[in-house]
Amino acid sequence: MSATTMFAGLHTPHLILDADRLERNAARMRSRCDALGVTLRPHLKTAKSTDVARVAANGKRGPISVSTLAEAEYFAAAGWRDILYTTAIAPAKLSRAHHIQHEHGARLLLVLDSPEAVAVMGEAAAALGARFGILIEVDCGEHRSGTEPASQELVAIARAIEARSPQLDLMGVMTHAGHSYRFDDPAPVRALAEVERYAAVASAEFLRKHGYACPIVSVGSTPTLMFAEHLVGVTEVRAGIYLFGDLSQLSRAVCTQDDIAVSVLAAVIGHQRRGPTPSLILDAGALALSKDDGANRFMPNAGYGLVCDAVTLAPLDALAVATVHQEHGGVPVPDESWFERLPIGSFVRILPGHACLTCAAYTSYAVLRGGKLVEEWPRIGGW
Amino acid sequence: MSATTMFAGLHTPHLILDADRLERNAARMRSRCDALGVTLRPHLKTAKSTDVARVAANGKRGPISVSTLAEAEYFAAAGWRDILYTTAIAPAKLSRAHHIQHEHGARLLLVLDSPEAVAVMGEAAAALGARFGILIEVDCGEHRSGTEPASQELVAIARAIEARSPQLDLMGVMTHAGHSYRFDDPAPVRALAEVERYAAVASAEFLRKHGYACPIVSVGSTPTLMFAEHLVGVTEVRAGIYLFGDLSQLSRAVCTQDDIAVSVLAAVIGHQRRGPTPSLILDAGALALSKDDGANRFMPNAGYGLVCDAVTLAPLDALAVATVHQEHGGVPVPDESWFERLPIGSFVRILPGHACLTCAAYTSYAVLRGGKLVEEWPRIGGW
Repeated sequence: MSATTMFAGLHTPHLILDADRLERNAARMRSRCDALGVTLRPHLKTAKSTDVARVAANGKRGPISVSTLAEAEYFAAAGWRDILYTTAIAPAKLSRAHHIQHEHGARLLLVLDSPEAVAVMGEAAAALGARFGILIEVDCGEHRSGTEPASQELVAIARAIEARSPQLDLMGVMTHAGHSYRFDDPAPVRALAEVERYAAVASAEFLRKHGYACPIVSVGSTPTLMFAEHLVGVTEVRAGIYLFGDLSQLSRAVCTQDDIAVSVLAAVIGHQRRGPTPSLILDAGALALSKDDGANRFMPNAGYGLVCDAVTLAPLDALAVATVHQEHGGVPVPDESWFERLPIGSFVRILPGHACLTCAAYTSYAVLRGGKLVEEWPRIGGW
Repeated sequence: MSATTMFAGLHTPHLILDADRLERNAARMRSRCDALGVTLRPHLKTAKSTDVARVAANGKRGPISVSTLAEAEYFAAAGWRDILYTTAIAPAKLSRAHHIQHEHGARLLLVLDSPEAVAVMGEAAAALGARFGILIEVDCGEHRSGTEPASQELVAIARAIEARSPQLDLMGVMTHAGHSYRFDDPAPVRALAEVERYAAVASAEFLRKHGYACPIVSVGSTPTLMFAEHLVGVTEVRAGIYLFGDLSQLSRAVCTQDDIAVSVLAAVIGHQRRGPTPSLILDAGALALSKDDGANRFMPNAGYGLVCDAVTLAPLDALAVATVHQEHGGVPVPDESWFERLPIGSFVRILPGHACLTCAAYTSYAVLRGGKLVEEWPRIGGW
């Protein structure tokens, strides 16, 4: 099948999702979590789609993680009931969070990491007549957010939450080893997975020793889950990007190239002969791909995405989008024979550097099954 | 007025547009174009809003530039009639372009830069029974796209277009000095403005000598327009970011800080005491601000945006968003006294590094006039 037949009717740039790869990625993580003895709470900040969420949980509406209240609202309205909002919440958003619980019968779990946040949230919850389940975030070393694991500060937060009962209900602890992305070798990531696990489990045990039940012990990042030796004491895990994969994951050996389920369909709109090297010009630039260049840390030629055959998704040599303007992507080619190979109007597909950011530019996925376009799945954005 | 009163009812992160600043920026560029004796064709790829477009043209629906067919369709449906689509078009999009012209009675001007593109577009236009006005793009040195100015190649393209008449109608030439962003000093930008002008004017004259009328001679980028000494021979100019300003423009002395009309309202959601320096955590991260760090070339501490007082938009010392995760922005502070100054729940506003990319994450602007929230203006995205 030619690319123009395969993608007839799509406007470029367009986000493409290979459902076969998605299902394989989802099944692999479910097996992994079964083997580890933990509940998987997929993080849907990457996918932002009920269709993808269903694939992640093999058709069920199980526990999920989200990063925005817009996601919480969207999934709650579609019947999801157990939603962990993983970003610390601004107090002004609590009325909306309350509304989401009330309107849809969902339970929102919120995250905080200081007695100050407890005070502000407790007050707001009381004013609203709202009740929220709370996880205390501990910092396992990334220093993005979270309090000291297994510490008196942690106990002070738990005590403050208890003092705000029943508005705030302490449900457990969570942590996130975001620094697992600093390595491209499984060995240190495996060590960090143990650091992440230990920070959460030790914190939960410390709280239990002080009389707090702490039923939920939550950890997770895709790399640490893929490489953890065991997760004893952890009850549930959060990960999201494993569903799609991207060059950042590939460059860290967390997925293979054949696992990458999302790509951007783009068209060749020009042949530039006048620069330092000849270049293809694509109609996928900074907005279509994002300006995230994080994949280049361990894949120095990833640019803003690898250029692949539109039909087979096989890489075209090592062509990459090296420059992006708002709507133009520039792809240096070794010689002008590429202009014959990819004439103006040709389609290519681009493997994204960081799927979370690339997908955010789109309102839907064109879904492939068995290499055929079968449906369009909506996704949401915003806050 | 307190920030919570001023912005009551808004969910953070939210895009804020100061209409007073916008109007001042728009009026300044109109005066500038009057003085230069050229028609302003505002580029609406930054704003993507009919409300902003009206301010740009002082209430009129004049000629505009767009970067996507989604914008062309949106503006055509709202009554704009003279639309330059500045990205070279993929042939598969011509049926939609034809539809936009046909459905809304708009005239689309399309851009191309090779005989190959003429052949592909001419064939598609003939198949559709469509007619398009064409500008030939010449390359004034950025080497993103465009053919050699005032060259035999240029004439060959014109000849090819004529051979496709009446489907393709040669209307003139255009160029864009995108490399004007490589400098932070007006002197080289002024020189580049002359290079840009000369490339377009000499190309038009060359074509006229060969018998092509070439009524439109189009140049433009905000920096070259601000610093050009004259634009003799140019008929019209394109610029867009001047409407909003941002740190990239500020760092290149193209606007002042008080000209920056867009900002992102964010809330403090955490105080991080555990990193190398204490940090505020904001609920504006990579999606809310974009990962464009281009402002840092000439403003090394711009990070992903400067943090300002939410009410006055005065910078808070030189605080900047130094790290972004998907929904978290980290702002290092000199000491923990900032945690008292900006407790959890406080609002701040962030001046964006690159307004085109930051705005793209939002579906509307909350509009301020006289420091008061007066309305919400929708904006579009996608392709």
